[in-house]
Amino acid sequence: MIDMKNILENVIIDSWVERFRRSPNQVNQPHESDAELIEMPGDPDRYMAVTIDTVAEEISSGLYRDPYTMGWITVMASLSDLAAVGADPLGLVISVSLESSQDRAFANTIAQGMEGACRTLDVFILGGDTNETSYVSLTSCALGLVMRKNLMMRRGCKPGDAVFVTDGVGLGNAFALVRLGGYPDDYFPEKSYRPIANLAEGRIVREFASCCMDSSDGLLATLDQLMRINQLGFAIDGDWEKILAPKVMEFCQHTHTPPWLMAAGPHGEFKLVFTVPERSVDSFLMHAQSKGFSPIHIGSVQKTPAISLLLTNGKKIDVDVAPLRNLLYDLKGDVQRYLKEFRDIGRKWGLE
Amino acid sequence: MIDMKNILENVIIDSWVERFRRSPNQVNQPHESDAELIEMPGDPDRYMAVTIDTVAEEISSGLYRDPYTMGWITVMASLSDLAAVGADPLGLVISVSLESSQDRAFANTIAQGMEGACRTLDVFILGGDTNETSYVSLTSCALGLVMRKNLMMRRGCKPGDAVFVTDGVGLGNAFALVRLGGYPDDYFPEKSYRPIANLAEGRIVREFASCCMDSSDGLLATLDQLMRINQLGFAIDGDWEKILAPKVMEFCQHTHTPPWLMAAGPHGEFKLVFTVPERSVDSFLMHAQSKGFSPIHIGSVQKTPAISLLLTNGKKIDVDVAPLRNLLYDLKGDVQRYLKEFRDIGRKWGLE
Repeated sequence: MIDMKNILENVIIDSWVERFRRSPNQVNQPHESDAELIEMPGDPDRYMAVTIDTVAEEISSGLYRDPYTMGWITVMASLSDLAAVGADPLGLVISVSLESSQDRAFANTIAQGMEGACRTLDVFILGGDTNETSYVSLTSCALGLVMRKNLMMRRGCKPGDAVFVTDGVGLGNAFALVRLGGYPDDYFPEKSYRPIANLAEGRIVREFASCCMDSSDGLLATLDQLMRINQLGFAIDGDWEKILAPKVMEFCQHTHTPPWLMAAGPHGEFKLVFTVPERSVDSFLMHAQSKGFSPIHIGSVQKTPAISLLLTNGKKIDVDVAPLRNLLYDLKGDVQRYLKEFRDIGRKWGLE
Repeated sequence: MIDMKNILENVIIDSWVERFRRSPNQVNQPHESDAELIEMPGDPDRYMAVTIDTVAEEISSGLYRDPYTMGWITVMASLSDLAAVGADPLGLVISVSLESSQDRAFANTIAQGMEGACRTLDVFILGGDTNETSYVSLTSCALGLVMRKNLMMRRGCKPGDAVFVTDGVGLGNAFALVRLGGYPDDYFPEKSYRPIANLAEGRIVREFASCCMDSSDGLLATLDQLMRINQLGFAIDGDWEKILAPKVMEFCQHTHTPPWLMAAGPHGEFKLVFTVPERSVDSFLMHAQSKGFSPIHIGSVQKTPAISLLLTNGKKIDVDVAPLRNLLYDLKGDVQRYLKEFRDIGRKWGLE
């Protein structure tokens, strides 16, 4: 039994959840889906999906400096949660807390980032709340409807299911490493970090997937969480050329960064990680292709609850992602020590 | 024509709204309702209602010191918006930003305040987001469903309609004055400030009302906003014994505070201010009474777009609430000057 509670983030979430009564109409258990799912009286075919996300630490830590990024990510983060449950958005509400000293241009650029993200996905901001504070904090709450028959949850995969990701990953980690690791900004300009929630892909995936989660915490953390929820493991091709976005591979070669870091780091992006039952893989891929969507097949679900990486040199290693995930909490704020200890773990695994 | 834009808060909201495209499925125009209202495909009878509210300034200013209050108000503020549009809640999602140095007891008490508010109204928290920050900021997003035929908006009253409030007001302002005005805390203990969103009353009111808004910005500001939206005025009984809660009148007598301040101050509570067409008043009151609900009839809608107070001494004065509402923005942070200039305006009106 792989324990959910070995992950500090899960413990923090549970400490909140256990204080609250559970709605008799709520469909998902805690941790079980990217968005909360609730029955609507009189609607036997659909669920309401709702999710809330605050972007604050990424701003105070200096990770995001461009207000356009702040607005963009705020909107995309919550839409990505809707994509991961197979929902179609009804809209968003936002809450914006800004410093009173902040100039008008700063607020305008945040709004442009939010609206840019909305236009990209044909979604609308319905309203919101503004506050004058001594810091910047941006919250987005997205709501949508999902057909019950198309619902995707994090729970549901079976041994033998094929594991896919909607597209090459690693852009979030490459950007974060440039920002916090002392590389020149132009190695990965913030302006080029504009991840797009996979709503369109989610509409295809939801017809086939046995489970789904977005990659907002990075690929390996996503697989680790899916492992704990499903009590099953994943045999993943440790073929970074296939798994990482081409731009990320270029960055790794250019900076001599070991590519595994781009799959293991905690600053993900909004790809979907999902599983498809073996018998449906062919029809899924045919359907995806007909829509111009080329998901990446990265491995399969295995009975053993472990993340097994099949490296291109033929070696197979089981990696314990928990220490990586918890490191964020253990070393809060100390970025240099974080980067060092993170790589030490990978060396122990035999990845460097 | 009374301009919406004479109120700085409306200008700030508009500066955000104008940056965003409007959803073709959104029912309400900006300022027109307490919650955002959106059509749901395939549901011709209902709208989805959604609202978001952040409690941050009330914490940083020292107005709320008890974490139970912080949690309670966060939940009640968004549920009150649902009550004001006539919606039945589906649930809430919350986002909690806390200082990492904050002890566990502090977070627990916030959670207890949230859960206490939810239990009081038989509503459930569905999920949320947590963040470690250098400040405390609490956001709640409530969603609900409203029957189209029962929808209440801020727009819709007609001259001659009767004006009601669900119950005596002023508790929020009494509490704020004790807190910020230098009175001993036990004149209005924070533990006794537990306003309850009027969801039950809203279910009755929605069958009769021509417009509705909650009193979260104080009674006079609410009437002023309704005046601007409807381009109509209100003749209000300036009979503070009738309008203010008994506890508030006691506080005023005890501290020699002029009662008008309790209706005029900006820290309201979650009563509903609403209008009922003259022909429906009797059946409304009969129905309300049968449910044990005794709304207070405080005046009527008039053609002249002004707030006219009919004082108990027989005088009728028209009050311009705009300077009071804008004072918050003009004198941000300077509480003593705010209190002084606020009272000066009332003196000019002839209320002191």
